[in-house]
Amino acid sequence: MKIRLFFVLMLIVSFNLNAQNKDSLMIRNLYSAALSDNSGYKDLEFLCKKIGGRICGSPQAMASVEWSKQLLQQVGCDTVFLQPCKVHNWQRGPKEIAKVNSNVYGSYELSVCALGESVGTGDSGVYGNVIEVKSIDELKKMRRKDVEGKIVFFNRAMDPSNYYTFMSYGGAADQRVIGACEASKLGAVGVIVRSLSMSIDECPHTGIMRYKDAPKQIPAFAVSTFHAEKLSQNLKIDPALNLYMHALCKFLPEADSYNVIGELKGSEFPNEYIVVGGHLDAWDNGEGAHDDGVGCVQSIDVIKIFKKLNYKPRHSLRAVMFMDEEVSQRGGRKYAEVAKNNNEKHIVAIESDHGGFTPFGFSIDANDTVVQKIQKWEALLKPYGIYKLIKGGSGVDISFLKENGVPLMAILTDSQRYFDYQHAPSDTFEKVNIREMQLGTATLAAMIYLIDQYGLK
Amino acid sequence: MKIRLFFVLMLIVSFNLNAQNKDSLMIRNLYSAALSDNSGYKDLEFLCKKIGGRICGSPQAMASVEWSKQLLQQVGCDTVFLQPCKVHNWQRGPKEIAKVNSNVYGSYELSVCALGESVGTGDSGVYGNVIEVKSIDELKKMRRKDVEGKIVFFNRAMDPSNYYTFMSYGGAADQRVIGACEASKLGAVGVIVRSLSMSIDECPHTGIMRYKDAPKQIPAFAVSTFHAEKLSQNLKIDPALNLYMHALCKFLPEADSYNVIGELKGSEFPNEYIVVGGHLDAWDNGEGAHDDGVGCVQSIDVIKIFKKLNYKPRHSLRAVMFMDEEVSQRGGRKYAEVAKNNNEKHIVAIESDHGGFTPFGFSIDANDTVVQKIQKWEALLKPYGIYKLIKGGSGVDISFLKENGVPLMAILTDSQRYFDYQHAPSDTFEKVNIREMQLGTATLAAMIYLIDQYGLK
Repeated sequence: MKIRLFFVLMLIVSFNLNAQNKDSLMIRNLYSAALSDNSGYKDLEFLCKKIGGRICGSPQAMASVEWSKQLLQQVGCDTVFLQPCKVHNWQRGPKEIAKVNSNVYGSYELSVCALGESVGTGDSGVYGNVIEVKSIDELKKMRRKDVEGKIVFFNRAMDPSNYYTFMSYGGAADQRVIGACEASKLGAVGVIVRSLSMSIDECPHTGIMRYKDAPKQIPAFAVSTFHAEKLSQNLKIDPALNLYMHALCKFLPEADSYNVIGELKGSEFPNEYIVVGGHLDAWDNGEGAHDDGVGCVQSIDVIKIFKKLNYKPRHSLRAVMFMDEEVSQRGGRKYAEVAKNNNEKHIVAIESDHGGFTPFGFSIDANDTVVQKIQKWEALLKPYGIYKLIKGGSGVDISFLKENGVPLMAILTDSQRYFDYQHAPSDTFEKVNIREMQLGTATLAAMIYLIDQYGLK
Repeated sequence: MKIRLFFVLMLIVSFNLNAQNKDSLMIRNLYSAALSDNSGYKDLEFLCKKIGGRICGSPQAMASVEWSKQLLQQVGCDTVFLQPCKVHNWQRGPKEIAKVNSNVYGSYELSVCALGESVGTGDSGVYGNVIEVKSIDELKKMRRKDVEGKIVFFNRAMDPSNYYTFMSYGGAADQRVIGACEASKLGAVGVIVRSLSMSIDECPHTGIMRYKDAPKQIPAFAVSTFHAEKLSQNLKIDPALNLYMHALCKFLPEADSYNVIGELKGSEFPNEYIVVGGHLDAWDNGEGAHDDGVGCVQSIDVIKIFKKLNYKPRHSLRAVMFMDEEVSQRGGRKYAEVAKNNNEKHIVAIESDHGGFTPFGFSIDANDTVVQKIQKWEALLKPYGIYKLIKGGSGVDISFLKENGVPLMAILTDSQRYFDYQHAPSDTFEKVNIREMQLGTATLAAMIYLIDQYGLK
């Protein structure tokens, strides 16, 4: 019995070793293939330089739909199809102007941009004295007469002391999203919000804002961190300085747009889906390189690398290019709706939307059994810097699959530089390092390989 | 007895918890302080922009000695002193020229630079046909008549498929270091070596070369990766093309130089030293930002942060700015020699010379007891991305302390971008992200704090 048990144990051990061995070999091949391939980087260059900023509703967004459709066909998907959705169509208009007029400092321009979906100022612009606050709470404590007719300047910096910059982003983003709404309740005529960036530079960072229950829709600008600090200093000496804001943002009627989906048919479970995706749309003021050209290219490249290594997934693999992450998530909602209506079985959905930086793990939005199963793969991934497999959030686009009961995941990357570029003119192709991006591709491919082999049950 | 044991155990557990708690609080403070401080980044900017490239023997190297001496005084060291050493004094001379003359492709220049300590070509330059090889081995198999009078072109790329770029560097560096020596043994008149970079660009990367037992010292250039690929393609069509090389490198007499040492006196063990250091010298063709301005600034900043947090180390802490890492390591040798002669007791020496990228661990060159003790601190450091504490090599400058029996360590950083910049004109201040650099500072400070508290025995 002892001997038998010994042999059974040895068999189990040896089976596991073989599995581990086979898996670690496959994973090494995935990383080697990704790191040796520069075609995805060239695809990203095309998306950034030939198409550029591509906010939903824009001609560039439609160009990115066509770009990704053709690319998914070229890498050898079995099926490529578009999934229609209606999207907002907000246009920034001509370059915004914000001009300080001060008896002490004279007149100078601030580098600004309208926040996403802000109203314009009208042709004549908006004038006002400036009142600086650090937070929504500070504003809410003010009296109407101190705010009325003024421009509220939200100047809370992202907290640099956090290791995770996403935490600092979470701690400062409310002023951008609901600052205008709250300021309008006290009669402000406009708001100007410090850019959500750790870097002190002259790049203004846009991003969505919401009027919600605002009594009046007032124009909302982002100002570069450098000029936020300058304005703040100047206000200390000259609190009576005046600010002029001008922007001609407008809404066009909703536009037709699409998610783009490329599918590799599963050899054993063709009706069970693994989704990997990023979002096609990107703010109009940059190239949308890290946010989220990289996520799109990586998702397409997972298929490219599987084909290259002749790996035929057991489950159907879908690379999904979501439309409209930045504004109303119409693409993400549509994907989940169709999946639900068609009763599609999804094994997992993974989003890449943390920029093309060196990856270090995955955040997993699923039950503990799933999380623990994934955590058992840590040893296989740690040689490639993947040491953190934690329960947490996932991605904006895939989040709508949660009510369908789908396990969700986000690839986590080194976040130190992310907010220097997010939603800004500086989010360009040149800021993406090919090796960091390709490590993300390999990491996604490795995780998908393991899920495809062993499931998540 | 059981109860007693229980209480004893509880005491031990609670003591450890308190220690852990105290330590994790202190470590959090170190990271917060470092991430909130931009003064080190400004110091790096000064070193890069106002002093710049500073190869040993140069006036800029001496400027960097003075810069670091003043900085160490300003941050509040108890003692700052210079440690004299003699260094080589090689000068590149005017911009090198390498020109291809081809009946097929016409005439064009390659972006090149002389390798460190290469001889010049003389005023009239060197001409020759070009013979391309991928390795020293391939060259060694050739007949003298196929190489004689020619210029050998070493064109082995760094292997992109490795996760660790330092591994790929190790796999390709021999052609730079001993390529000229081996080529001269077969009668070559010069060598041109593909730059050790993963990036395909027009930056030539210098670095030390050695003639060793070469029968004749022939000029050795690095060529940018972009031009290496172009030259290789052109050679396939026109193997008879000719290359002209011109450089006026020369040696001046050895110069006086210095290590710069700042000391914070230990409160309990003033005669036991913890060393943290980087190297002051940097190749003349760039700004020496990542290599190794960052290491110097970080070492100084460890003292700055301890002072700021009012942490008084139990052991004496030395920030050592080593001179001459790139050429002959005279500074490192001198430091070890003096330490030995003075019978100084060193607890540990840690070097930062992997660039200002996000750190992920330490490599430890010490016995297993020391390694295991350090590994027990992993849980304290993992929240800050430090997950790899492994036995391995350390740093070039501190390596000479090994025979004194000193445990040695190197901070490990994300190496994906390092070789895009190393020894090249692209190693500029702008390539260093403040947060990544400051994470390195905090990580060094945290490790030094733990060693200072608990020793390595």
